[in-house]
Amino acid sequence: MRIEVICTGDEVLGGKIVNTNFSYISQKLEDVGLSVQWETTVGDHREDLLQAFLMAGQRADAVIVNGGLGPTIDDLSQEIAAKAAGVGLELNEPWVARMEEMFRRRNRVMTPNNRKQAMLPIGSEMIDNSVGTACGFAIDIGKARFFFTPGVPRELHRMLEEQIIPRLLARSGEQTAIYLKRFHTYGLGESHVDVMLKGVENLVPDGSVKLGFRAHYPQLETKLTVRGTDKNDVHAKVEPVTREVRKRLGNFILGEDDETLEGVIMSEMGRCQGTLAVVETFTSGQIAGRLGHLPGAEIVFRRGTVARQLAEIYTAIGLAEVPTGGELTPRTAEVVATAARQQSGATHALAVLVALDEGPDRIDLAGTICLAIATGHEVASRRSRIVGGRDWVRLGAIEMGLDCLRRFLQGLPVQERIDFEKTENKT
Amino acid sequence: MRIEVICTGDEVLGGKIVNTNFSYISQKLEDVGLSVQWETTVGDHREDLLQAFLMAGQRADAVIVNGGLGPTIDDLSQEIAAKAAGVGLELNEPWVARMEEMFRRRNRVMTPNNRKQAMLPIGSEMIDNSVGTACGFAIDIGKARFFFTPGVPRELHRMLEEQIIPRLLARSGEQTAIYLKRFHTYGLGESHVDVMLKGVENLVPDGSVKLGFRAHYPQLETKLTVRGTDKNDVHAKVEPVTREVRKRLGNFILGEDDETLEGVIMSEMGRCQGTLAVVETFTSGQIAGRLGHLPGAEIVFRRGTVARQLAEIYTAIGLAEVPTGGELTPRTAEVVATAARQQSGATHALAVLVALDEGPDRIDLAGTICLAIATGHEVASRRSRIVGGRDWVRLGAIEMGLDCLRRFLQGLPVQERIDFEKTENKT
Repeated sequence: MRIEVICTGDEVLGGKIVNTNFSYISQKLEDVGLSVQWETTVGDHREDLLQAFLMAGQRADAVIVNGGLGPTIDDLSQEIAAKAAGVGLELNEPWVARMEEMFRRRNRVMTPNNRKQAMLPIGSEMIDNSVGTACGFAIDIGKARFFFTPGVPRELHRMLEEQIIPRLLARSGEQTAIYLKRFHTYGLGESHVDVMLKGVENLVPDGSVKLGFRAHYPQLETKLTVRGTDKNDVHAKVEPVTREVRKRLGNFILGEDDETLEGVIMSEMGRCQGTLAVVETFTSGQIAGRLGHLPGAEIVFRRGTVARQLAEIYTAIGLAEVPTGGELTPRTAEVVATAARQQSGATHALAVLVALDEGPDRIDLAGTICLAIATGHEVASRRSRIVGGRDWVRLGAIEMGLDCLRRFLQGLPVQERIDFEKTENKT
Repeated sequence: MRIEVICTGDEVLGGKIVNTNFSYISQKLEDVGLSVQWETTVGDHREDLLQAFLMAGQRADAVIVNGGLGPTIDDLSQEIAAKAAGVGLELNEPWVARMEEMFRRRNRVMTPNNRKQAMLPIGSEMIDNSVGTACGFAIDIGKARFFFTPGVPRELHRMLEEQIIPRLLARSGEQTAIYLKRFHTYGLGESHVDVMLKGVENLVPDGSVKLGFRAHYPQLETKLTVRGTDKNDVHAKVEPVTREVRKRLGNFILGEDDETLEGVIMSEMGRCQGTLAVVETFTSGQIAGRLGHLPGAEIVFRRGTVARQLAEIYTAIGLAEVPTGGELTPRTAEVVATAARQQSGATHALAVLVALDEGPDRIDLAGTICLAIATGHEVASRRSRIVGGRDWVRLGAIEMGLDCLRRFLQGLPVQERIDFEKTENKT
């Protein structure tokens, strides 16, 4: 089945908005084993929209159009869809009623131009939007089925997942049960994981499990897409592969599916009724900033201390003896974490200290990271070197600090070699 | 002049990469008064690439193609460009020599497949890439001039600005002197600024000044694009408009052109040889995180303190009397900022305290922000309510804290009504 996507709108075409709707649509389709072959972006311009619709209608079996369903004069999708399909527009009374109800619930009055959003091409299938006033619809243009979706991301996401993808799967004639299993890791590069997982797809010999990756430094997402006849079938198929992936990636898996590193840390802290103190230097509050604003953090997150100078850190956490010169060591981080925990009364403290190399920013600028995690009866630490410029070092140090805390809370070794660090083990 | 853009590559089409190259190209063209009419994304697939090139060659006057110039087997741009233009490929010896020189400088050996990057369609114009091994080129296909650019953002940016845009301007027959003036503001919405600046373009009666906006909450960028015969002409034209914009937007302008809010704060702090302490609650280190990692912050940024509980803040900054219950007031922020400054010995302290409303996250969840800035002889404060959910309140509080610090350092009023806050003035 050939699928195309048409994105509309002057703001997307003019680059005022980065087109994340398209990458979202494309990824969601890949996750269920479908793929986009062609994408077109046009502005809010009648001639271009018509041409784009007609051309896609000649080439594709299914087309997803995004945007242009709003109430204003430059929202043209319904009008041009009707023209391309050779039909008129008619008011969809059920949708008018739905909109009036939505406005009533929000204590607002519906303006006359909102009625425009309920004008659909004659003969089209209405597609429900449970979170907004833009009504989706489907209609045939040329040899393709067109699905019209709203530009507001939240509305697009719901409509795509709940309404459009099931229709596409039904049309594709594929086995409709699809399952996506995701693993999130920190510290392993895509090509390394590719080698580590060599052959796992073959545990299911019929080729119904497909392996894929999505890298967003410093994390990597590993995806298994599984097809089958029904829910039981896909679960039975993915189970041995999931087990094997867990075995091979082991401690590097920081979460699965919708889990996040921050979320896992928060729930581990909740489980042990722990509280946390964080001390940072070059990461400058960005480790605290990943945790401290989350729901539940008002209990878990006790205190964060930030300074660029180690002497200032020592003063802030009540350590009398200020270190003089010398190299940053894991022992320094241990002393800092221990003192920060005692000072704040938290059950756990994380200290991430970074010594950035001298000189201007450059691609081979490196930083030394010494971090430690302390509790009342235990302290763990590690040293690492990351090369790649100021931003790269900073982002790596944030993630390493959080991931080591996750490992500590899960009883895993804090020290395990990662792909992003230089081979140096001075500890 | 009709301009189209063709983006190529399975990773962009499959949504693994969000297509920021396209929005970059489109914005850069708008900045010089050109605009993109049509965009197409296709994968690394011979038939689709050929079809996309031929169709754009029929419709457009100029086409920018992005990606597919790499050394690997799935990089097809040169091959398909040659096919679409009806010519063969030939090795560009000067580019081979350039690549060999690049590899030598990096102490690496050039692999044979890099030679593929120097295979250009016969009759094409080589376009220099000063920062990478992908050679750009231009060739006619159909009635359009095609410009082929690398997918690596850094390489694209240089090539677009230094090589492609001048060629496009020359082809467009427009006056080639273009100047872009930018103003960055916090606290004013796009439609409000649009009204405030009504008519400024008409200060230059020949229509050569164009006003535009780019909103990225919480900041807004206001752009003036000026055309003229030469550099002196554009500067003479933009000067009265710039003066008028500065007058009308006044204190809300946090920076111009490449200036950032953080950069302005750092340079104001540097100017007064100041040092800074920051205290945060719900923003959880994200205010410190905007400043503390910057070059120069090792001197300016003294200390950051983060806690979700006000009592914990009081303990951390050495205030004996812990506040009991009661509403958060600007006075609280003043006490905290004053104590934090004294404790750290910094010349300035910024305290941003947020009381988030109760209940689950929702679109009308609000937060009360009380912030203060203290020096040894002065303290300024303000109170504000922001509505729009947890993330909206958090982002607003970060920006308001930083912008009030900027205002304070520049001797401007800290308290000035902004568009994002509810009308409440309980202070």
